[in-house]
Formats: sequence, C-alpha cells, structure tokens
Amino acid sequence: MNEVDLIARYFAPLAGPEGLGLGDDAALLTPPPGCDLVLTADALVAGRHFFAQDPPESVAAKALGVNLSDLAAKGAEPLGFLLTLALPPDWTEGWLDDFSKGLGTAAKASGIALFGGDTVSTPGALTLSITALGAVAHGRMIRRAGARVGDLLYVSGTIGDAALGLIQRRAQVEGRAAPGWSDDFLVERYWRPRPRLALIPALNRCASAAMDVSDGLIGDARALARASGAAVELRLGHVPLSPAAGAALSADPTLFDAVLTGGDDYEILCAVAPDHAVGFEESAEALGVAVARIGRIAEREAILGSDGAPVIFGRDRFSHF
Amino acid sequence: MNEVDLIARYFAPLAGPEGLGLGDDAALLTPPPGCDLVLTADALVAGRHFFAQDPPESVAAKALGVNLSDLAAKGAEPLGFLLTLALPPDWTEGWLDDFSKGLGTAAKASGIALFGGDTVSTPGALTLSITALGAVAHGRMIRRAGARVGDLLYVSGTIGDAALGLIQRRAQVEGRAAPGWSDDFLVERYWRPRPRLALIPALNRCASAAMDVSDGLIGDARALARASGAAVELRLGHVPLSPAAGAALSADPTLFDAVLTGGDDYEILCAVAPDHAVGFEESAEALGVAVARIGRIAEREAILGSDGAPVIFGRDRFSHF
Repeated sequence: MNEVDLIARYFAPLAGPEGLGLGDDAALLTPPPGCDLVLTADALVAGRHFFAQDPPESVAAKALGVNLSDLAAKGAEPLGFLLTLALPPDWTEGWLDDFSKGLGTAAKASGIALFGGDTVSTPGALTLSITALGAVAHGRMIRRAGARVGDLLYVSGTIGDAALGLIQRRAQVEGRAAPGWSDDFLVERYWRPRPRLALIPALNRCASAAMDVSDGLIGDARALARASGAAVELRLGHVPLSPAAGAALSADPTLFDAVLTGGDDYEILCAVAPDHAVGFEESAEALGVAVARIGRIAEREAILGSDGAPVIFGRDRFSHF
Repeated sequence: MNEVDLIARYFAPLAGPEGLGLGDDAALLTPPPGCDLVLTADALVAGRHFFAQDPPESVAAKALGVNLSDLAAKGAEPLGFLLTLALPPDWTEGWLDDFSKGLGTAAKASGIALFGGDTVSTPGALTLSITALGAVAHGRMIRRAGARVGDLLYVSGTIGDAALGLIQRRAQVEGRAAPGWSDDFLVERYWRPRPRLALIPALNRCASAAMDVSDGLIGDARALARASGAAVELRLGHVPLSPAAGAALSADPTLFDAVLTGGDDYEILCAVAPDHAVGFEESAEALGVAVARIGRIAEREAILGSDGAPVIFGRDRFSHF
C-alpha cells in the first residue's frame, strides 16, 4: 500500500471540512471570529510513552488526549488537530485500522476532526506527533502565570491512577506477577486520558492560572506557582484519590510517591482567587466535573502530610523526556 | 540535562511572542484579521528523509523548508511553526546546538519564529515533525484542484538537483567513489530546500491551481491535473535544469529519470489560465523567481521528449513513505 492509498483508507474518513479530504497539500481553517488560537504539540514514542503492545486505539486516545488536555487547561475549546505518524517496519493493517478507528472515536467524543498530517516509515520505534488547535475569546487564554498569593489551588478528578496503572501494566508486559492491588480501572486511566474539556467554562470564569497535570502533581504544582513568582502550599490529605488508588495505597503505602509524582494524570490544576472559590466549585459541579481544593498559592513552599506535618519530596516530577 | 533546561537553552531563543517563552503549555496566536489559516505538517526520519550524518543545520533547514514550501504553494504567508523532536540515545549537545541554530537561521530567513512543540527521547531514529501555519486572504487559498483544460503549467526554479544530490550524497555516506558529475551545488539543494515564498504574490494573482514538487515532477504534475479531473501535457525539453544538473545529464543521460521522478525539489508547480500567463511571467520576474512553462492541462496525458515524441514513464514519483 502506498502513502496515498493508506491516507485515503485510514485517515480521510476522519477528516473534517478543514482537511479538504486530505487530498490537498494543506488544511484550511477559517478562525472563529473574535478568538485567539491556542496551539499545542506533543509527541509519543513506543517504548517511552506507551507500550508497543498496548491496544492501538488506546495509543490513539492517549496521543489525542494529552494534547486536548493542554487545550482544556488553557480554557480553549478544541477545533481540530494534525497528526504525523512514523510507522515501524512491522506495522500491520490491523494495527492501523484499530488505531485510526480509535482516533476517530476519540476525536468525535471531543467534537473535533482531523485537519491533516503526514505518514512516513521509520526504521525505529512507532512515533506519533499531534498538533492540536483550540479557540478562546480574544485575550482570555488562561496562562500558567497569573496566580496570586492566597489563591486557592484546585485539581480535577483523581490523581495517581495512571501512575499506578503504569506500574501494573509494566508488570503485565514484562510477564511478572500483577501487584495485589491491581485494578483494570487504573490501566484504563493510563491508557485513555480523559481531557477535562467539560471544565472549560468554569476555568474561563474563575481560574487565575492553570495547567494540566501531566508530569506529576508535586512538580506541576510547583511549576504553576513558580510561573507566578510564588510557591505552593499543598495538603496531601486533600489530594483526591479514586477508590482503586485508595485500595492500592492501603495495600502498599509506599505507592503514595508514585501517585504524587508519577504523572500521566491529565487532570486540570488551577488557581482560583478566594472570592471566586464558591462560584468555581458550584460551576464545576454543574458541569459534572469533580474538583478538590488541595492547597493554595503561598509565599513559601509547604507540603503537608495528612497529619499536617511537613513532608520532603526528593524527585518532584516524572520526566517524559 | 532535563527537558525544561534543554528547551530553555536550545529552543526558547527561537520563540516568537506567540510561544510565550515556551514556558506555558501552549502557544497563543491572534489570527491576522480577514485571513484564513493554512496548516501543514511533515515528519522527517533519520535514515529515511535525511542521513543521520548530515549537518544538523541542514536537517533543520530541510524540516522547516518542506513545510514552508507547502505554504508557498497554497499562496499562504508563513506565520510560525511548532516542532516535535524525538532524540535518539546518542544525541549530543553539539548536534542540538547546531540544529537549533540552523533552525533559527532558517526561520529568520522566512520571517517567522517558533511557536512551541515538544522534545522527547526515542530508542529509535531521530525524528522531527513540524506543523507550520500560514495566512491567506479569506477564501483565497490556492487549491490543488481548480485548473482547467488549456491552463498553462509552470514550474519555479530548477528540477532534479536534489535527486542528483541524493545520489551523490549516498555514495559519499556509503564510502563509494563520487560520480564523475558530482557538484556540491546538488547536495546543497538536497540538504537545504529553498521554499519559494517570494513567488506567493504572483501565485495569488494568477494561479488557478498549485502544489509543491516534493515527490517527483512527473507524478506531482499528474496529481495536480488529476485533482482538477484532467490530465497533463508535459514537454520534457522545457523542464528547467541547473547548470550542474545539465552537466550530470550530459555525462550520464540515464539520470534523466531521477531528475523527473526523484523528488525533493520543493519548487512550485502551478496552472495559470492563458490570459494570466504574461502577467504571471512578468510578476515572477519582478519577484526574482525564475519560472518555466513546461506544458499545459489537457484532456489526455502526453509526455513529450525533447524531440516531441511521446515518452512512457513507469515509476512516476518518489514515495516518502
């Protein structure tokens, strides 16, 4: 199969009108009036960001999800995306079929379509790169900077599921015994991030600064505060956990480090001024997204354990590099 | 060096205001008023699209150039680009320093800057993916389709240099004797495409359809005509050749096949209605870009040799896949 046939078969069905049937050299987007465009790009490599053996549609969901998560954190409604895909020598039509269908499903779930891209072969590992575009009212993009000392710190959903899912999945791929606390929910969270697009209206109304949690809560919270020239006060006892993560921590409390620094959460971390706090909480609830208040922006860093005593973290974030 | 330090050192200096210092999670672009955005993405893999031993700044120039060439063909003035870079285990700071400087130089030469991107590690081959954005007056993007039977076919610059440069470069990398017709100019053309951005005003005024020549002139001309439901009449004797390519063909006439089908030209191929022909030629000349009339859009295909007799081509284009 040549590149033209491959694109026609697997990717043209995913294209929106901007993609011009993927038969031209470029995509054409008329920007929504009165809006700024928000642009983000992330690359994923087999053996680094996912396992080559992972279900193809989970790879698609992850590649798109990590980009849409960035848009959500900036308060930008997604418009579409471009994909470049480098296929290794052992790629199969079955893999590509499942991948493209998964990509289509993930895109549709977020109300967007494929704009364009490129497919090449590689002698190395399967590599994907997605550039996603979003729109936000002119001048209203939520920055990483912008928080003030005293702003409250919120995080959406639950933290640590994907980090635990990765531990579980790695044991599986390497043929080792599954940890006693294993739960398919955790691997699911590792495979298929759910970008918190639903939270966008609440963020746009109330957040003074935001980013997504991709490299570990501790490090990302530090980065968010640092961008505003401040520090973070975190209450670890308030970090929201799923029942599965809670059960894992009961079985093995040392996993708490992975929960807080493991990354791949793709939840929203944001600062909210105190007088917007009630509005933010009510708005998030109305939008169906759980948010938890986990600390505040402070002048000096303090990470407090469940007992209120300070905790020291050596490693602070997972490096995707 | 971690990812944050690497970005700060090598890529932040290339960022435009849209890149927000590469310290946020996304770039922010206020689209030029009254314009559509044109989006294109291309991936390059070491060992596939360039040699791992090629000068790092040529890799940068090529990665950006192939994308800007697509924008030029669509009549879109470039705005900026995002880069994802997957570095293999043996990457060095020297390589990255030269690469990023070359990228900065190439971007500056085209009047644009880096918007954002991602840097990851790969167990495989060095892989780059660039998404470039351009702007064109609303509703005025030049499509691949749009040509009519009778339109004249033009190509910019010279054809075949890069294909010959690749043959010469491959011999060098593989330690074989250089062909007798070798000329550094040809390798230069393989390494550093020059996107024909200067031709944009002439294209916008006169072209009925356009694309860039990236996969071989014969195949790309066929693709251009086919997009308009027509065929191509090509006069091979009119295909513009550089002195170096001319000398190579004198030494070895069998190279003509590589010239016509080898790809990597990154010249502009366009159709122009007969009543715009003089205007196009004069406009291109005023813009300092050589253009040659190589045939026309026809109802039936005819590829005519220098003697006017029909020629048959088996293979029609280089597959980058």
